[in-house]
Amino acid sequence: MSELRQDPPTKRWVVLATERAKRPKDFVGTTSPPELPEQDPDCPFCPGNEHKTPPEILAYRPEGSEANGPGWQVRVIPNAFPALRPEGEMTVEDPYFFTRTAGIGAHEVLLESPLHNRSPAHMDVDEMTQVVRAAAERFMDLAQDDRLSYIAFFRNKGKVAGSSLLHPHSQIIATPVAPANIREEIEQARRHWDDRVGCVYCEVLRREKEEGARVVADTGDYLIFEPFASRWPFETWIVPWRHAAIMDPADEQNLLALARALRTALRCIYQAADDPDYNLVLHEAPLRDSCEDYYHWHIEIVPRLSTPAGFELGTGIWINTVMPEDAADFLREFVEA
Amino acid sequence: MSELRQDPPTKRWVVLATERAKRPKDFVGTTSPPELPEQDPDCPFCPGNEHKTPPEILAYRPEGSEANGPGWQVRVIPNAFPALRPEGEMTVEDPYFFTRTAGIGAHEVLLESPLHNRSPAHMDVDEMTQVVRAAAERFMDLAQDDRLSYIAFFRNKGKVAGSSLLHPHSQIIATPVAPANIREEIEQARRHWDDRVGCVYCEVLRREKEEGARVVADTGDYLIFEPFASRWPFETWIVPWRHAAIMDPADEQNLLALARALRTALRCIYQAADDPDYNLVLHEAPLRDSCEDYYHWHIEIVPRLSTPAGFELGTGIWINTVMPEDAADFLREFVEA
Repeated sequence: MSELRQDPPTKRWVVLATERAKRPKDFVGTTSPPELPEQDPDCPFCPGNEHKTPPEILAYRPEGSEANGPGWQVRVIPNAFPALRPEGEMTVEDPYFFTRTAGIGAHEVLLESPLHNRSPAHMDVDEMTQVVRAAAERFMDLAQDDRLSYIAFFRNKGKVAGSSLLHPHSQIIATPVAPANIREEIEQARRHWDDRVGCVYCEVLRREKEEGARVVADTGDYLIFEPFASRWPFETWIVPWRHAAIMDPADEQNLLALARALRTALRCIYQAADDPDYNLVLHEAPLRDSCEDYYHWHIEIVPRLSTPAGFELGTGIWINTVMPEDAADFLREFVEA
Repeated sequence: MSELRQDPPTKRWVVLATERAKRPKDFVGTTSPPELPEQDPDCPFCPGNEHKTPPEILAYRPEGSEANGPGWQVRVIPNAFPALRPEGEMTVEDPYFFTRTAGIGAHEVLLESPLHNRSPAHMDVDEMTQVVRAAAERFMDLAQDDRLSYIAFFRNKGKVAGSSLLHPHSQIIATPVAPANIREEIEQARRHWDDRVGCVYCEVLRREKEEGARVVADTGDYLIFEPFASRWPFETWIVPWRHAAIMDPADEQNLLALARALRTALRCIYQAADDPDYNLVLHEAPLRDSCEDYYHWHIEIVPRLSTPAGFELGTGIWINTVMPEDAADFLREFVEA
């Protein structure tokens, strides 16, 4: 018998279709990660090819090493084919019906390592901390621009997850409009707050920790777990125990703690599901939009081990063939002591 | 310069990323439709293999031909691995936090033709009308069950669109919960009604017809067009000129008109984009949920010519590289006189 479950924070329904159930172990061996070299002369993101990308916005490199040359550990560049770009003015045309505006914003690529084959699942804590710190620096800079409403940070890994380039990278797209999905999450969280005088994500943390069956790891700062109404096999959330609507990019201690949590989550997923293609997305409050009491920033990772089809796209109800409790069981095997 | 556009009925934002723009013609030759035989002995949906599926719920077959044997033109069966099934009771557990319920509902497969290789793009009007009529019959039957809240009708064509079986088929999933996406559409339509005393979809029809640039065809009964804020290349909507919140399954005249419109739309997409994988989804009001004034049923077809990635999944903002005006221009070339 399959089961319908409702995600407590968003209220979205998911069908856990046990009739077509897969065991988490069934995914091992279904993907074959490419064997990659440390450097690829044809990769525009590899050291030595810095001239093939737009000039860097930020780079961590040894003192004395030249901008836009090799030597960097982490490097942020504008996307060469940006969805949105910083130049221009926001003028909204026909705000009543066919509303349109120039594509103002920013689209940046964060090169996470000079090594072409360095999966985040294999990074040490120092490397991961540099990635997180570089993202945090870009957040602080972009947040100054009051034409922007939201800074989306995400990582697409693999072709199925929408990425064509193999070199390890994540992306930032800053938009002049607030995303509907985030607004909806906040609205649901506000309703919960109004009804129960508490943050729904804080309650998720307490209850998940108490039940335990879906927890992958508790780092003390972050709870890593499979959500109750997981939409995808191995869907994994990383939620900070400390309540806050946005990730504080200036908190060095927290960046380190986040790097540790990310590393644990990505390493477990890499091993349990054989280096699957995935999307990782930061969820946080829009800029200058205080919802401090009731919203709670977090990270969602969705391995692309199933394909959303007409039913999912049309209704917003997802069908998942792996029970989150089973996924958590299996993922826990790969947590390092 | 790219452009941000807002979909008038849903208010969702889309980035039309002209920096990475593709011409609609660029998709020709990107897919290679498989050469299929008329019959495949290994296909459980082909005539002669009726015993490989659960017993039929409905079939159009010549008088005297036996149920669950060959001879049918259209055949509806329960999904052998249903996401939801009709047996059992709705008992909601822990309605406050970790809400769950048994997977009550229905999951049916509509076999659209006895021919393994019969694309809807090649069906004549009679064949298409039988498909539409069979769906309508199932709607009338399922609507009797008041445990159900919604009947989702959809067609997944091709692997990229989530379908593993090649035999032409569509699906029906009836759910005991109303889909969040449909609720959201209705809510936005209600706001428009409250603000402007008019149906937003009726206004879309008038304005699209007036502008003309995104119209593919006007059959008199249905307007076929690329929506202003198309999320996917060749996203195509089929919207009835006659305002109604649900498709009337008993209106024979309308079933015929709908079959004609579907045939035109699918034929144009098939030819313009080289038989792409796609999802087709009916959007209509939930059962026994009157929103007759302000909601307007319609069909959305999304060819899966791009991959939603972290940005789209996280924010709900879509990036599309094909201007709907260009797509409409190209699709119009394939409308039969």
